[in-house]
Amino acid sequence: MAKIDLNCDLGESFGAYTIGRDQDVIPLISSCNIACGFHASDPEVMQKTVRMAKEAGIGIGAHPGFPDLMGFGRRNLRVSPEEAGAYITYQLGALYAFAKSAGVRIRHVKPHGALYNMAGKEYPLALAIAKAVQAFDPELILLGLSGSESVRAAQDIGLPAAREVFADRAYMPDGSLMPRTMEGAVIHDEAEAIRRVVRMVKEHKVTAADGTDIEIVPDSICVHGDNEKALVFVTQIRAALQEENIEIAPLAEIVV
Amino acid sequence: MAKIDLNCDLGESFGAYTIGRDQDVIPLISSCNIACGFHASDPEVMQKTVRMAKEAGIGIGAHPGFPDLMGFGRRNLRVSPEEAGAYITYQLGALYAFAKSAGVRIRHVKPHGALYNMAGKEYPLALAIAKAVQAFDPELILLGLSGSESVRAAQDIGLPAAREVFADRAYMPDGSLMPRTMEGAVIHDEAEAIRRVVRMVKEHKVTAADGTDIEIVPDSICVHGDNEKALVFVTQIRAALQEENIEIAPLAEIVV
Amino acid sequence: MAKIDLNCDLGESFGAYTIGRDQDVIPLISSCNIACGFHASDPEVMQKTVRMAKEAGIGIGAHPGFPDLMGFGRRNLRVSPEEAGAYITYQLGALYAFAKSAGVRIRHVKPHGALYNMAGKEYPLALAIAKAVQAFDPELILLGLSGSESVRAAQDIGLPAAREVFADRAYMPDGSLMPRTMEGAVIHDEAEAIRRVVRMVKEHKVTAADGTDIEIVPDSICVHGDNEKALVFVTQIRAALQEENIEIAPLAEIVV
Amino acid sequence: MAKIDLNCDLGESFGAYTIGRDQDVIPLISSCNIACGFHASDPEVMQKTVRMAKEAGIGIGAHPGFPDLMGFGRRNLRVSPEEAGAYITYQLGALYAFAKSAGVRIRHVKPHGALYNMAGKEYPLALAIAKAVQAFDPELILLGLSGSESVRAAQDIGLPAAREVFADRAYMPDGSLMPRTMEGAVIHDEAEAIRRVVRMVKEHKVTAADGTDIEIVPDSICVHGDNEKALVFVTQIRAALQEENIEIAPLAEIVV
Repeated sequence: MAKIDLNCDLGESFGAYTIGRDQDVIPLISSCNIACGFHASDPEVMQKTVRMAKEAGIGIGAHPGFPDLMGFGRRNLRVSPEEAGAYITYQLGALYAFAKSAGVRIRHVKPHGALYNMAGKEYPLALAIAKAVQAFDPELILLGLSGSESVRAAQDIGLPAAREVFADRAYMPDGSLMPRTMEGAVIHDEAEAIRRVVRMVKEHKVTAADGTDIEIVPDSICVHGDNEKALVFVTQIRAALQEENIEIAPLAEIVV
Repeated sequence: MAKIDLNCDLGESFGAYTIGRDQDVIPLISSCNIACGFHASDPEVMQKTVRMAKEAGIGIGAHPGFPDLMGFGRRNLRVSPEEAGAYITYQLGALYAFAKSAGVRIRHVKPHGALYNMAGKEYPLALAIAKAVQAFDPELILLGLSGSESVRAAQDIGLPAAREVFADRAYMPDGSLMPRTMEGAVIHDEAEAIRRVVRMVKEHKVTAADGTDIEIVPDSICVHGDNEKALVFVTQIRAALQEENIEIAPLAEIVV
Repeated sequence: MAKIDLNCDLGESFGAYTIGRDQDVIPLISSCNIACGFHASDPEVMQKTVRMAKEAGIGIGAHPGFPDLMGFGRRNLRVSPEEAGAYITYQLGALYAFAKSAGVRIRHVKPHGALYNMAGKEYPLALAIAKAVQAFDPELILLGLSGSESVRAAQDIGLPAAREVFADRAYMPDGSLMPRTMEGAVIHDEAEAIRRVVRMVKEHKVTAADGTDIEIVPDSICVHGDNEKALVFVTQIRAALQEENIEIAPLAEIVV
Repeated sequence: MAKIDLNCDLGESFGAYTIGRDQDVIPLISSCNIACGFHASDPEVMQKTVRMAKEAGIGIGAHPGFPDLMGFGRRNLRVSPEEAGAYITYQLGALYAFAKSAGVRIRHVKPHGALYNMAGKEYPLALAIAKAVQAFDPELILLGLSGSESVRAAQDIGLPAAREVFADRAYMPDGSLMPRTMEGAVIHDEAEAIRRVVRMVKEHKVTAADGTDIEIVPDSICVHGDNEKALVFVTQIRAALQEENIEIAPLAEIVV
C-alpha cells in the first residue's frame, strides 16, 4: 500500500504574536515541523507545541531557520556553511530539549524558508546542514525538496533523507520548482493540485511546465494551516488520498 | 583529601565581539559555564568553546541567562517561573547539541547574572529552574550560590546541587552575599580573599560581616578570566589550594 | 465645552506577525501611540502606521518600550535611569524620522507597558524619561498615568504633561490604579465604566475602591483596538461622550 | 587647495562588548560614521559617541546597517528596496535624536557593510536608500563608493553625494573595487597605499589592476581605528596629506 506523509509548519507564534491555526491542522497531518526560535517561535511556544504534537501522536521535526525574526526567515542571508551548520545544531538542540523533557523523540529536520531554498540549490550549504544533523543524531531524517541539493547531500553522507513535494506548485522539466516569479508557478485549481499529488504518490510522475512527464518520488507533501482556506485544502487532500487507498503516515514509517 | 572545583564563565563572545580570555583561563580551572546565546554567545562561539573545553578535559556546564543581550543578562527581568523554566530548557538543549555533536557531556547548569541572583532569592523561580533541568536530565548538577533558594530547590526535588562560593565577596551573618551596594562587599585584599577561600574549603567556615564565624560548605569557587589581573588571581588561588593539599577537581567528582 | 482625548496603541505588528485592528480603531480615536521597534513594530510597520495616522488626522505619539520583543515590553526590566533615557531618545528619534519624512509632527510620548508602570512609580526613572523627551523637543507632551510620578516629573521640569485615565480600571483612594492582582481591579460592567469616564471628564471625580470620591483630572482616555469587543466599547464611549457634549480632541488641543 | 575628508566608523560597541578605539582615532579624522543599533551599537553607545564627536568637532554621519547584529551587518541580506528604505529612515532618526538632543547636526549617511556593498551594485536598492535619506533631510550627504550605484542614485535625485575611496584596496579598470576574493585586492605596502591616496586627491587618478590609469575623484578616504596598526596607518596618511598641502576637512566643506 502506497504511503505518504503530510507535513505542516507549526509553532510559529512568538510572544504576544500568533500565527497559524495549529490546533486545527494537527488532526489533519502526520508530521510537523516546529520552529526553533530563530525565524519564529519562543521557548514557551516550543514547549507547548511539542506537547500538542506528542499528544496527537504526529511525527515531530525541527524547523530551523535564519536568525531573522523580522523577515520570518524568508530572506536570503549569505551565511557560510560553517555558520549554517552551527545554527542547525543550536536550534535542533533547543527543540530536542523540549522533546526530551516531554518524553518524545524528534524524527526529522526541515530547514525553513530561505535556508530551505538556499540549501536546496547550494551543495556546500546543504552538506554543512546534513553534517550538523548527522553529528547530533545520525538517525534523524532530513526533509528536503525532492530533487534538491539538500536531499543529495544527505544521501551522500548516509543521512536518511525524505523528499518533499508541493501540491500547488508547478515543476520545471529538471524536477525543480518553477520560481514564484514565473507565470503559472502556483496551481490555483485545487482539484488539479490534488490530482497531481495523487499521481505523484501512485505513479511517481508529474507533468512538468513543458508538458512532459517527469519522475518524482514523494515522501511527504507540504501543507499549510494558516487559515480556513488552507485547512479546507488539507482536508480535501486527505480525503482524496484515502479514497485512493494511500496511507497517510509519519516520515519515520516512510523513510526506513 | 579536600576537594574543590574552580569554575569560570566561558564563551561570552558574540559575533564580531570578543569578551574573555578563554584560552588563558582554561588551564587554570576545573569547570566552565558556557553561555548559551541569550545573554551572550552565538552558535559558532558555543561550538568552539565546547570543543576547547573538551580538549582541556574540564567539566562543561550550561550557563543560561535572560534574553537580554544588550544588558548581558545582568538586569533583573520579571519573568514568570514558567518562562524561566522554558528559557532554561531551550538554552540547555542548545548547548547539549554542541556537546553531543562533539562527543562530550554537559555536567552542570549555572544560571547567569540576574537570573542567578533572582533564583537565589525567589524559591518559585529556583524551583522552576531546577525542575526544567531535572526534566531534561536528572543527573545534571545545579550550581547555585551556597545557602541560596537555588540550592534548596534542587535539593527539595532530588536534583544534584553544588554550592558556589566567592573568594572576593563578604558574607552576611545569614550566609548570603553582602550586596554590592554596601561598603565592604568586595574584598580587595587578595591575600585575605585567598585565606578565606582556603578556610572555607578546609574548615567549612567564613567570617561574616559582623565578625562572627558562619558555616559554609563550598563545592566550587567562582573565578574570572576577563583580564590579566583576574588571571593572576586565579593562579594564586590555585597555588594556595595546592599548597594546602586541596585537590582541584571538576564538579562531577565533588557532587556525587 | 469639556474636552477629552481618546488614545490607543497602534502599529504593534511585527514582520509577518499582526496585532491590532488599526484601521478599524483609527476612526474612533483622536490620538495614537505608535510602537517604535523595541517591544513591538518594525520600520515598515512604523512607516505605514504614521502614514495612516496622518491621513486620518489624529494626533501622533511615540510609544517607546523596553527592548523585550519576546515579552511585548510587559515585563519589568531593571534598567538604570540613564539606560531608560537613552532608550526613549532612540525610539523617539526613529518614529520622528518616519513622521518627518511623511510631513507630519509627533505631538506626544507615552511609554509602553512595564516602562509606563515603572516610571509611574519611580521618580528617578520618570525624570530621566521626561528629560530625554525634553532634550529632544520641549514641546512634546508626556502622556502618563494620572497622579503618577511620570506626570509629576514632567511638570517639575516644565515639560507639557497629559494625564491618562482608564475607563475599565478601579482606582485606589490615593488615585493610583488598583493592581490587576486584586479582586475588582477591572470593571467588567461596560455601562458602569462609561458612567465613570463621563463623570471623570465632567466632574473630575471618580469613586475609589473604598467608596470615597477622589479627584481626578483626565486629559486622555486609554482605549484598545485589538478585537471586536474592544472596538464596540470604544464606539460606546464615543457615543456617551458626544451625548454629554464632551468634545473628543487630540492632546495638542487639550494640553496647551 | 585640495581638500579631502578622512572618515572612520565609530560607536560600534554594544552593551558589555567593546569594538574600536574611538577615543584614539577621533583626533585623526574629520568625519565619523556612527552605528545606529542594527548591526552594532546600542542607545547608550550612540549617545556617548555623538557627544564625543561633537566635542571633537568632527563631522557626524549615520552608519545604518542590516538588522544582523550576529553578523555585524557584513552578510548580504536579501531585503526589498522598501525594507531598505525603512531601515535607513529608522536608524537615521534614532541617531538624529541623539544629535538633536546634544545640539549638533548629522551631516551625512554612509550605509554599512553588506548594505553598502549591495547598494553600490544594485540601483533599485541604492535609489531606495537615497530617497529615504532625502525624504528625511534633503541636505544630508550620501557617502558611497566612488563610481557606485549609490553615488549615481543620489545624483539622479539631487541628493548631495560624496565619493569614498580606499587607500589599501586595488581598483578594477571600470573603477570598481577588486573583490577581496581576488589576489591583490588588498594593498599591504603602506607606503604604496599612501602614494596612491595622494595621487587620487591631487591628480584624480589611480592605477587599476590592469596597469592602466583610471580617473577617480575622491571626497573622502575610509580609514579604520580598530587597532594599533590601523591607528599608525591613519597617522601616516594624515602626515602625507599635510606634507602635500592637502587640507583634511569634513564632508560638509567638500560637498557643497
